[in-house]
Amino acid sequence: MEAFFKLKTPDEVFDIINGFSPVGEEAVSLEDAFGCVLNVDLTSPEDLPDFFKSTMDGYAVQARNTFGATESLPALLEITGEVSMGEADNMVVESGQAVKIPTGGMLPAGADGVVMVEYCSLLDERTLEISRAISPLENTIQPGDDFKKDAVILPAGKRLRPQDLGVLAGLGFSEVPVFCKPKVAILSTGDEMVPVSQTPRPGEVRDINRYTLGALCRNMGAVPIYMGICSDHFKPLREMVEKALRATDTVWISGGSSVGTRDFTRKVFETLSDFELLVHGISISPGKPTIIGRSGAKPVIGLPGHPASALVVAEVFMTRMLRILSGNMDARRDVHTVKQAILKRNIPSSGGREDYVRVKLEKDDENLTAIPIFGKSGLISTLVEADGLIRIDMNTEGLYEGDEVDVMLFEI
Amino acid sequence: MEAFFKLKTPDEVFDIINGFSPVGEEAVSLEDAFGCVLNVDLTSPEDLPDFFKSTMDGYAVQARNTFGATESLPALLEITGEVSMGEADNMVVESGQAVKIPTGGMLPAGADGVVMVEYCSLLDERTLEISRAISPLENTIQPGDDFKKDAVILPAGKRLRPQDLGVLAGLGFSEVPVFCKPKVAILSTGDEMVPVSQTPRPGEVRDINRYTLGALCRNMGAVPIYMGICSDHFKPLREMVEKALRATDTVWISGGSSVGTRDFTRKVFETLSDFELLVHGISISPGKPTIIGRSGAKPVIGLPGHPASALVVAEVFMTRMLRILSGNMDARRDVHTVKQAILKRNIPSSGGREDYVRVKLEKDDENLTAIPIFGKSGLISTLVEADGLIRIDMNTEGLYEGDEVDVMLFEI
Repeated sequence: MEAFFKLKTPDEVFDIINGFSPVGEEAVSLEDAFGCVLNVDLTSPEDLPDFFKSTMDGYAVQARNTFGATESLPALLEITGEVSMGEADNMVVESGQAVKIPTGGMLPAGADGVVMVEYCSLLDERTLEISRAISPLENTIQPGDDFKKDAVILPAGKRLRPQDLGVLAGLGFSEVPVFCKPKVAILSTGDEMVPVSQTPRPGEVRDINRYTLGALCRNMGAVPIYMGICSDHFKPLREMVEKALRATDTVWISGGSSVGTRDFTRKVFETLSDFELLVHGISISPGKPTIIGRSGAKPVIGLPGHPASALVVAEVFMTRMLRILSGNMDARRDVHTVKQAILKRNIPSSGGREDYVRVKLEKDDENLTAIPIFGKSGLISTLVEADGLIRIDMNTEGLYEGDEVDVMLFEI
Repeated sequence: MEAFFKLKTPDEVFDIINGFSPVGEEAVSLEDAFGCVLNVDLTSPEDLPDFFKSTMDGYAVQARNTFGATESLPALLEITGEVSMGEADNMVVESGQAVKIPTGGMLPAGADGVVMVEYCSLLDERTLEISRAISPLENTIQPGDDFKKDAVILPAGKRLRPQDLGVLAGLGFSEVPVFCKPKVAILSTGDEMVPVSQTPRPGEVRDINRYTLGALCRNMGAVPIYMGICSDHFKPLREMVEKALRATDTVWISGGSSVGTRDFTRKVFETLSDFELLVHGISISPGKPTIIGRSGAKPVIGLPGHPASALVVAEVFMTRMLRILSGNMDARRDVHTVKQAILKRNIPSSGGREDYVRVKLEKDDENLTAIPIFGKSGLISTLVEADGLIRIDMNTEGLYEGDEVDVMLFEI
């Protein structure tokens, strides 16, 4: 007997997904930390920068010696030396003195500002004429201006961008404590499936989902592990899923589309240790026959067999799942970049479910416009043509030409 | 003597960058093709799908046998068999007959549509009652609905997304002809530079640019090759650049900030074979002291030494360069996702140059707002805080609180 299962709304599904936890922790070299997610609040072990430095090529001086200086009434100072890059000289700038300094050079003791070279001229080798006043600290960076010792530099849950690695480099983190990248087992079921290298006989199709879902995982910084194609039979599918669960952090089965397969998937899941069925059917189109469960802490997912439906479900829900498993806290809200556009045609929709409609973006005079791509939802070509998806709320009966819509971009 | 060089405007620089060419071509396995750029228009070797298939679980029939069928006046058909997934049976559906078919199953000869199982009931094992009419082709996909044989499926210059790999998989491309990923030599100069693993002495700093620029390359699908740190001396720098040019497709030097280094970079470039200096200074802030040249077809780049300036220049210009070298034609326009936001504070700007101002995005009631991050432009912490950049045109003197601005997002 089939248990009766109420379809979950997308918001309920997102809440369930938000309940999963990051898959593990490790330390990676700074080299490999790009795109990884920090697992602790990192604090600064020292001041950055840790010395008083010039931001300009010029002369280090005592600022008050320049007060009142103008082109017609320049200040005159004695040049007593030159700062070498990367060295802390023993020079001292006394009142009335100036020391030549390059950008990034360390200010000598006594100096409290730098006059840009553009406002300096040499009367002779030892005499500097300054035609503009500076305030104290002008054209300098002080110790700790970037980060003071013990300040939080980056919070746990932050996905590391180029500039974030830069700060870590500046502070000497050659290793970074991060959450592990989730390993995703991808397996395709269906008696009609053949690998891409094989010529299908009539009625057979090549395995598309392996590549679409695998690329989506990579795009999210996860590691796809391909388990292969499984026929529509309980025992081999169960063995494959158990093997996959041992080796990875989450298992994604995309169902062959045959009548029995979706049931197999659920029945196989139900034999897994510490299994709980969390979602069996989502009130969306496409993608209704999606299954989400857990075996222990690991999400086990049954996706639709249609490549287009499977990819839409993965784009909408599994991107969030991958971010959560990666420890990326911001992901509890939005994963996708959203752009506003003006809808170019009416889109009808039946109430009681959310529709995710493929759209193409085009510039039209001044506006960005979203052109719905109609056509059979099972066609992957409609996704190839699309730049993103728009969501039609459960409580509306469609959208109208001229409406401003939010487009979730397909991004790589 | 210094040659006089006119600063180039950003638009002139983009035009120069657009003049470079992709770095090479190769074939990669479909597995590894995600994010690669096609180097030819790919055409479909066969119809996709290549057989007439059902999109629903139901019964394959001759549509005209259902015309007029309603709940109160159902059509009665004889069930003559069942389609197996992945097989082309020798069944024929004659008028008055129905064959059970799963989603994705191949329609038997004679059938021209599928009645969804929801509108079917069995009177007995051999007799089907249909309560709703279908039109011919209803609930089916025909051969070539995705792509017809010889149609262009994806154009040269297209960067491959998950769905694009899906179509390639469906059509049996186990290898894909693509442009090579550009290899970028990254080298840092400056007597003050030490590697991240080393504790700087007073006046020394750790090499930040290696990590920020390397991560930016990875983010764009390019391959960074780290050449190391070079002191501010002509001969070792020249040797390092020549070695880098032999091994990679483009060389990026980020200058130590000392007075002499920027000249060294240019002077070293001028000794390279078939060298042409294209840009020496850009009218932007930050990032003015940027050098772009070519040695043969390979771009050689001198970036500012300040990590924040170097990263802004790389984000604005080098992202485009990497896309062009990767063969991505769309990149001749925009690389970044741009979002509109409402500016929260006035930003002054001097005319005659473009300013790239770091902003943080925040939701404020209904609107997305952009908060300028002021502070010394040499500080990398201001980039860590930022979500993107806004461009202030050369011909304006600033932007005002309440203006709608375009924010170039930092995306990973």
